[in-house]
Amino acid sequence: MPETQMPTARTRVVREPHRGVYSREEAYRILDEGFICHVGFAVDGQPFVIPTSYGRKDADLYIHGSAASRMLRQMKDGIAVCITVTLLDGLVLARSVFNHSMNYRSVVILGKATLVDEPEEKLAALRLLSEHILPGRWDDSRQPNERELKQTSVLRVPIEEFSAKVRIGPPIDDEEDLSFPTWAGVIPLEMKAGAPIDDEINPLREAPEYAKNYSRSLR
Amino acid sequence: MPETQMPTARTRVVREPHRGVYSREEAYRILDEGFICHVGFAVDGQPFVIPTSYGRKDADLYIHGSAASRMLRQMKDGIAVCITVTLLDGLVLARSVFNHSMNYRSVVILGKATLVDEPEEKLAALRLLSEHILPGRWDDSRQPNERELKQTSVLRVPIEEFSAKVRIGPPIDDEEDLSFPTWAGVIPLEMKAGAPIDDEINPLREAPEYAKNYSRSLR
Repeated sequence: MPETQMPTARTRVVREPHRGVYSREEAYRILDEGFICHVGFAVDGQPFVIPTSYGRKDADLYIHGSAASRMLRQMKDGIAVCITVTLLDGLVLARSVFNHSMNYRSVVILGKATLVDEPEEKLAALRLLSEHILPGRWDDSRQPNERELKQTSVLRVPIEEFSAKVRIGPPIDDEEDLSFPTWAGVIPLEMKAGAPIDDEINPLREAPEYAKNYSRSLR
Repeated sequence: MPETQMPTARTRVVREPHRGVYSREEAYRILDEGFICHVGFAVDGQPFVIPTSYGRKDADLYIHGSAASRMLRQMKDGIAVCITVTLLDGLVLARSVFNHSMNYRSVVILGKATLVDEPEEKLAALRLLSEHILPGRWDDSRQPNERELKQTSVLRVPIEEFSAKVRIGPPIDDEEDLSFPTWAGVIPLEMKAGAPIDDEINPLREAPEYAKNYSRSLR
């Protein structure tokens, strides 16, 4: 697999091309820090965009869901999908309205989803999804039984045609705006976890470390 | 405008229908707390999903961007779009792998985008977008000039065909799993702002209150 993916006409970053990133390593870093993607698919020309969780193994992205969902029913037919992961890092406040921006890292993957129906690969993918969101949790949980596995669909999307886009750093103002009398800078944003809330029904254990110290950015 | 929007075949929540919400008021609450949407549009059957900021006025959603962007070029032609806003509230850890879930609130809007080119409405929409993200900032910034306004496109999407989906609360385990010896509960998640970072170039002012105490959920 090449270290850098040459963009196609469909994945080349058109707007602000200097923010386009085609390094597989950087795309993986973004995918591994996030765990919610937005999946796009079109039915009769009407696009739908649905949030869902995902996991990654090497150059494959896995998503899952109920076999009954609209998204998975459509995607199983091998239609084209777009999977986008966005991490928001901050609000960028410039002197001019026009140069206001956001710091973010995003990945866009174009491809086709394939149904994973080989039982071992399916179970491995579900474990991957779970461990991607919360390492250690799978082994602490009651394992899926056959009925539950049947109700769950897993889809694989190859990470082949993709691009990332990254903005970091301070505001970039035009030279003539630098003396405009206002504050300029960045408000950092981060997804943070609060203290775990015990289920009130039959609490048998204290919250484990992975629930008490949950963080994405420290991983 | 009706208080409750009857879902169409395209917006009815198929999976977990009890989580479907068709109240305009609830959808507005979600849209007003978020400020990043994922916009889906299809070109020759290939969907694209692009993150961008937005603002809302009554039953209209506004997005903006460079006139040069792929998204806005396509959407100006009046193609069908899907706009999805997702707020992530927590990880839901059940006893069984199968009943793990997330707490979230999401809105899906289907519609067509229209270019806003009347200068006054365009300026008002840009102000709306700015105030939606950071109230008070517009008036503290250097206002857009004619050249900048020309480089910016604003699109309006009516909030007509929509649905919301909401999951709140503790895990819901099967009765027979309640004695499984593990911790169960919720890890709350929230987007939090850190201390503002002053631009190092020509700092003329201290960070204003709206930068020091930025919060979405307290608004």
